Amino acid sequence: MTHDAAGDAQLALLLELAATPKPGNVDRERDHPDLRFEQFLAGAVGARRGFDAAAAGAPVGDAFETAVAGMAARARDNTQFGALLLLVPLVAAAATGDDGEVTPAAVADVIDATTVEDAAGFYRAFEHVDVRVGAPPDDCDALDVRRGRDAIPALRSRELTLAEAVTAGAPTDGVAREWADGFERTFDAAEALRTGTAPLPERVSRTFLRLLAADPDGLVAARHGDAVAERVSDRAAALADADRSVIDAWADDLVDAGINPGTTADVVAAALFVALSRGVRE
Amino acid sequence: MTHDAAGDAQLALLLELAATPKPGNVDRERDHPDLRFEQFLAGAVGARRGFDAAAAGAPVGDAFETAVAGMAARARDNTQFGALLLLVPLVAAAATGDDGEVTPAAVADVIDATTVEDAAGFYRAFEHVDVRVGAPPDDCDALDVRRGRDAIPALRSRELTLAEAVTAGAPTDGVAREWADGFERTFDAAEALRTGTAPLPERVSRTFLRLLAADPDGLVAARHGDAVAERVSDRAAALADADRSVIDAWADDLVDAGINPGTTADVVAAALFVALSRGVRE
Repeated sequence: MTHDAAGDAQLALLLELAATPKPGNVDRERDHPDLRFEQFLAGAVGARRGFDAAAAGAPVGDAFETAVAGMAARARDNTQFGALLLLVPLVAAAATGDDGEVTPAAVADVIDATTVEDAAGFYRAFEHVDVRVGAPPDDCDALDVRRGRDAIPALRSRELTLAEAVTAGAPTDGVAREWADGFERTFDAAEALRTGTAPLPERVSRTFLRLLAADPDGLVAARHGDAVAERVSDRAAALADADRSVIDAWADDLVDAGINPGTTADVVAAALFVALSRGVRE
Repeated sequence: MTHDAAGDAQLALLLELAATPKPGNVDRERDHPDLRFEQFLAGAVGARRGFDAAAAGAPVGDAFETAVAGMAARARDNTQFGALLLLVPLVAAAATGDDGEVTPAAVADVIDATTVEDAAGFYRAFEHVDVRVGAPPDDCDALDVRRGRDAIPALRSRELTLAEAVTAGAPTDGVAREWADGFERTFDAAEALRTGTAPLPERVSRTFLRLLAADPDGLVAARHGDAVAERVSDRAAALADADRSVIDAWADDLVDAGINPGTTADVVAAALFVALSRGVRE
């Protein structure tokens, strides 16, 4: 059997989902009132064909749109858009290696090779879901992702690649930063997931908390403002060595307040993919 | 997009897993000491290629072996062998329909069409896992499934099909009975899952309890004897209308006692597949 990069991506989504506590996110012990655990299971199943396409060498933009469309059809909501935007290029990079292990160099090659047509797939993907994004800068109305495929002529005339489209739109967003920085946080977090003796779900929970402490979450900032996002990260930093019960209580509080650090969870899912490709076991 | 029968099968495994309480089984709230929630997630991911093969029209025996091998490689244990033995022919049957809906007639056709070569795949599958089965009848040593591929010459000389191999080995086992009876309990349970207003996870939990009350569990009988299996079913019947807290307490007791009605869970997964093929939503 060739290495199963598509399966690794699917399992990364599922292991990220199940790990608990991940304060503010749906996890094995918590649902949001309008976003349930089962919808994330369905989203991970629906994304599979996009992962298969990426593993088979399909263009990254097409594979991403396929993954998002499948996720949205199964979950009937935007459960994992950001995670898919990280996982699809990682799967494509893993498929170029001999043994399925994904390297920073291979990911950089995938990012650098993205085209205007890949960017068109990215814009089409927005038509399948309701993604919370801010308005674009004043001179970029024609490239507003909320325009979906209507923005494609502007993409073509400006010759914007997928890598440029992702990083230009939201330079402070955690997912876009991974695209801009060669997935630096993803690879660092993958190493953290591979080390230590605690069961993997606990390592996932701790890694989530460390990432949240290090950088304000993009989804929280988009929905609740920068000040709230910074307060959440300060609290995560303060709880770095807290007992599980204290973190659990904070997780309940965040869910009650509707504060959902989903971008940080996206990076954790990407890190889990890298860790799985390098041999971590569930 | 053609109907995604392979995805339905995967989601059936995941929704069965997550539903809680399912007394004695791993669920969203419970692990067994040596069998964890994450291993079932991994098993569902690993089985995917077998489902894909069945959906693409591969021989049922080959598809089943592929599913079991993938499950075992990911989960490193026998997490879902019985469920796969029900799901693979259901996926094959769904793939013959126009709209992905699986009918009893289509399943009967798949079962009736199985061959000696399909039976060989079934025997090879046992080499990937440690399945708890009893010794065969005295005159059947040559067909003991524990012989794995060494039994294939005897299969061939007796011209035993997969349907005959499954039903001959363990006539009282819940999975074998579905093969023998045209998946009668599976289709009945699927209707129960499709009706009612409670969230699907609650309907899954109640359906599990009803199936367990109706028939002693095959895995419990194999591990703990018929008397224990009957006592468990009597208790399930007595709790048919009990409060959630009472069922939860019993679920904890069974896990503590190491009593795991896994065959009943296999039938629930099969019923979820049929319900998904007919349009139930998670």
